[in-house]
Amino acid sequence: MKLGKIIGTVVSTQTLECFEGIKLLLIQQIDEHGEPIGVPIVGMDVVQAGEGDTVFYESSKEAGQALKNWFHPGDVAIMGIVDHVDTIEKKSAEK
Amino acid sequence: MKLGKIIGTVVSTQTLECFEGIKLLLIQQIDEHGEPIGVPIVGMDVVQAGEGDTVFYESSKEAGQALKNWFHPGDVAIMGIVDHVDTIEKKSAEK
Amino acid sequence: MKLGKIIGTVVSTQTLECFEGIKLLLIQQIDEHGEPIGVPIVGMDVVQAGEGDTVFYESSKEAGQALKNWFHPGDVAIMGIVDHVDTIEKKSAEK
Amino acid sequence: MKLGKIIGTVVSTQTLECFEGIKLLLIQQIDEHGEPIGVPIVGMDVVQAGEGDTVFYESSKEAGQALKNWFHPGDVAIMGIVDHVDTIEKKSAEK
Amino acid sequence: MKLGKIIGTVVSTQTLECFEGIKLLLIQQIDEHGEPIGVPIVGMDVVQAGEGDTVFYESSKEAGQALKNWFHPGDVAIMGIVDHVDTIEKKSAEK
Repeated sequence: MKLGKIIGTVVSTQTLECFEGIKLLLIQQIDEHGEPIGVPIVGMDVVQAGEGDTVFYESSKEAGQALKNWFHPGDVAIMGIVDHVDTIEKKSAEK
Repeated sequence: MKLGKIIGTVVSTQTLECFEGIKLLLIQQIDEHGEPIGVPIVGMDVVQAGEGDTVFYESSKEAGQALKNWFHPGDVAIMGIVDHVDTIEKKSAEK
Repeated sequence: MKLGKIIGTVVSTQTLECFEGIKLLLIQQIDEHGEPIGVPIVGMDVVQAGEGDTVFYESSKEAGQALKNWFHPGDVAIMGIVDHVDTIEKKSAEK
Repeated sequence: MKLGKIIGTVVSTQTLECFEGIKLLLIQQIDEHGEPIGVPIVGMDVVQAGEGDTVFYESSKEAGQALKNWFHPGDVAIMGIVDHVDTIEKKSAEK
Repeated sequence: MKLGKIIGTVVSTQTLECFEGIKLLLIQQIDEHGEPIGVPIVGMDVVQAGEGDTVFYESSKEAGQALKNWFHPGDVAIMGIVDHVDTIEKKSAEK
């Protein structure tokens, strides 16, 4: 999974039936310091994430398994909202 | 899934039987501002997308699941046509 | 799927049994103008492609599904030979 | 699989039920000399790895298969703790 | 699949049970001229490859299918030892 930040929403009306009722969020991958990495992608929200939240998400086959209807063509899903990230580096700095 | 723009079509007659009747479109990945990212790829159209449309698509195992015949070797499929993308950045700029 | 050009063949005698009788081709990914992108990879031929052909191929789980024996560990397969690619850009230039 | 180093932990309370009880570690990919490559990702621990450990991990569909509940949406899992890496280069240098 | 060269071995004792008895090799991806590309990864050996061998390998879901116990979380496996690679470029140079 990757760390990301929710930076927007994507609205699509002409879509596959299986996407109806699924909220599509724009996710910006970030590193452990919160710096943006690469290009934003479009993910399905299953944990009620909101704009500005730090999340962990995945972008492969398993994404569909996070849905009740797991046989789903979606391949990016938000798995959880991140409370905090603890790194060895940060702990050393605090000492 | 990724944001993309339909920039052309691909014509192939000597192909696998399972691709017959499936329209192949050339997709250019774009970022949230519409800027092109990387190299165009070839995707299967399942939502009647046309040239110039902004879409969201996926490029992994699930692509086949978007087809009626889901046991399909195709690995890129267009999932929906994007009406608009709302970003935190854009909202801030409008204020 | 991606656009590619067949630039060679790979010969391997000490291989898994399931690769026997399958022709392995060296594929160079190309962009919509035919320019090479990245490093050549090794793909299974299922459409009788030859050296110099422009093809579309895929490089993920579905590749095996293109074979009669679809439960196959191969992960790159050539899906079709490309007759021509039509881009919005090209059409504009022709006007 | 890739070589990596455990550089921290990720804490998430608002997450999918299937992630409860699974420790999430921050993994930094490294090369054969221990140098960091790219951006840290979030992986599930199944081998009791700790901060500072060198591990090998994977970041695709099979990750879930490492869990007892293998039908799992997680796509990064730590597979083992690395004792040592022997390279041709290192052996030559020691002679 | 990709072309690679075996450049070392990885030793791990604290690992998942399903990795017992499987030799882990360090693979360096190479291009068609044998030049190294990117960072070495860790693959499972199923064709008795040795250090210095040129191989073709894969790094996705199908890797496990190369094993007798195909329901395996490993995602990189060596598929065959390469005898030689013939490219259009090489043939032209020989004329």
